[in-house]
Amino acid sequence: MKTVGYAAYSSDAHMKPFHFERRALRANDVAIEILYSGVCHSDLHTVNGDWGPQPYPLVPGHEIVGRVTDVGPEVTHYQVGDKVGVGCMVDSCQECDQCHDHEEQYCRHGMTPTYGAPDRIDGEITQGGYSKHIVVREEFVLRIPEGLDMSRAAPILCAGITTFSPLRTWDIGKGSRVGVIGLGGLGHMAVKLAVAMGAEVTVLSRSKKKEEEARSIGATGVLASTDEEAMTNAASSMDLIIDTVPVEHDVTPYTSLLDINGTLVIVGQVGPMKEFMTVPMIMGRRRIAGSLIGGIKQTQEVLDFCAEHDIHPICEIIRPDEINSAYDVMSKGDIAHRYVMDMTQMSDDA
Amino acid sequence: MKTVGYAAYSSDAHMKPFHFERRALRANDVAIEILYSGVCHSDLHTVNGDWGPQPYPLVPGHEIVGRVTDVGPEVTHYQVGDKVGVGCMVDSCQECDQCHDHEEQYCRHGMTPTYGAPDRIDGEITQGGYSKHIVVREEFVLRIPEGLDMSRAAPILCAGITTFSPLRTWDIGKGSRVGVIGLGGLGHMAVKLAVAMGAEVTVLSRSKKKEEEARSIGATGVLASTDEEAMTNAASSMDLIIDTVPVEHDVTPYTSLLDINGTLVIVGQVGPMKEFMTVPMIMGRRRIAGSLIGGIKQTQEVLDFCAEHDIHPICEIIRPDEINSAYDVMSKGDIAHRYVMDMTQMSDDA
Repeated sequence: MKTVGYAAYSSDAHMKPFHFERRALRANDVAIEILYSGVCHSDLHTVNGDWGPQPYPLVPGHEIVGRVTDVGPEVTHYQVGDKVGVGCMVDSCQECDQCHDHEEQYCRHGMTPTYGAPDRIDGEITQGGYSKHIVVREEFVLRIPEGLDMSRAAPILCAGITTFSPLRTWDIGKGSRVGVIGLGGLGHMAVKLAVAMGAEVTVLSRSKKKEEEARSIGATGVLASTDEEAMTNAASSMDLIIDTVPVEHDVTPYTSLLDINGTLVIVGQVGPMKEFMTVPMIMGRRRIAGSLIGGIKQTQEVLDFCAEHDIHPICEIIRPDEINSAYDVMSKGDIAHRYVMDMTQMSDDA
Repeated sequence: MKTVGYAAYSSDAHMKPFHFERRALRANDVAIEILYSGVCHSDLHTVNGDWGPQPYPLVPGHEIVGRVTDVGPEVTHYQVGDKVGVGCMVDSCQECDQCHDHEEQYCRHGMTPTYGAPDRIDGEITQGGYSKHIVVREEFVLRIPEGLDMSRAAPILCAGITTFSPLRTWDIGKGSRVGVIGLGGLGHMAVKLAVAMGAEVTVLSRSKKKEEEARSIGATGVLASTDEEAMTNAASSMDLIIDTVPVEHDVTPYTSLLDINGTLVIVGQVGPMKEFMTVPMIMGRRRIAGSLIGGIKQTQEVLDFCAEHDIHPICEIIRPDEINSAYDVMSKGDIAHRYVMDMTQMSDDA
């Protein structure tokens, strides 16, 4: 199937139209017309080559919402017209302990990312959601439930699951005390999800600048990390901290905010973190962890959870030809919303 | 009660005899004649002032084994002649959630360390086990079970419980895969305890130099952290790593050895740790934690466990007047055993 999208042609991250072919349907494949495609900060890192060399031209995008246009003969769960989504993965071995445990993101043989990696069968490089169509095996297709606004659902497939998964791993529920560092795309979803689970949520930020914004999405307020007295008063007051800051930083001031046995979970920075002090960790069995998106079953769970609780990411809908200016804004700093491209605005002969 | 011990008079860590008074028995106190006193690396750090200024003269020692010589009228669990021990704590508030959970080491109001801190009632600075007698409230006295050799039991009260506690927290049992970084006082106890719990234990060390020693105490062998190929082959192969290295170091090469959801627990270094990479943590929900000794109930449990499994720390018995040369050896590096002072060798008029 011929399609068109926006691709990076080199590590200068400048996106240009790209015409390419989607594979013919295999027996278990679902063909999807992409309606909305979220723009994730990791797309920018990837096409910039920050995380290693890439196979260009590369079509990024792993927050994909659309409609089924065709299915292979063995597909049982989807039919033409269904509202569906695709997240950060499009395949895994399906045979290891992790896949059996619905943790395909930790597949022992490596999951296949939605873009930039060889397909497990034909070795073709996967191309992502900044395009008008995609073909994905049934097991990696999600259902967009009634009650979710299609135009704002896409970021749930990355920002949503990335913050939902640690909230589930660490059993957050009614009465839990959760801190969220950073109020960007991941952070604001962490706040909304934790609040809906019944937690008391505090946003951690350098200043109180985002106080009103934090309260508007259900947080009790902002704790300014630069306010030493407030930080001292908040010692041992949180069960879980979700750290969404996407650059190298010092976690030590935050580990002291954890209660005994509490965990700070890193979901933002992929790379080095500064020197840390062991004292707050030893003196309360406190922990630092990492977490990567979530499995397919849990991704469906967060979509259903968002529909049930009327949770939508804060989205700014843009045309595909605005992608380069969106990248410019994103590369200048954290933004408290997600850009979502309306892919129906892309002409077939762009 | 008059007694005598070895004290540091300043931060030069040179120990000299010190005559002092132990308090008169309170209703719930137990008076103990100290027979053996373990020498912990943290004693050296403390008297050197590495962890902050100290109240000199200071008698260190928190690995104490002896016999009951007297009890207060309200003491119910001990009588004169009982074989007993005292570890790193001699009091806590006994009222907070942590004390109620048998985690006195994390008492919300701060536990009272065995030496160098004000007593909760009279404010006198506590003095430790490098002495001939000690008076401790009943709740912080441990029973030395039949089957433990009195002369080698002392290090269980610190090195033993410090490694036993994380093995219990992280549910180590038959088939668990445990790594132990460092084969000193803590490390060799971690190996023996984990092996007795049914785990497969690998020692992590810079070289294979300690291979034979590691095997002799039940480990499957030594994985040399400088052998890149061996380290790569061992990726994702351990459920828990106990990191006993008492100096600043890089934990990143070790976090990659953890299986998915595995934990590296720091029990050695109290202070800064080097910059670390988040990638192995994110890509497998791996964790770094700290852990501090263990509660009194668990300290009794490790003593009973050691008696049941015939586990004794490797001890070198020395005379109290050899303490300064023992410190010299210890300050030059890790030693795969504990010095234990035979306190009966100290004359009352030293």
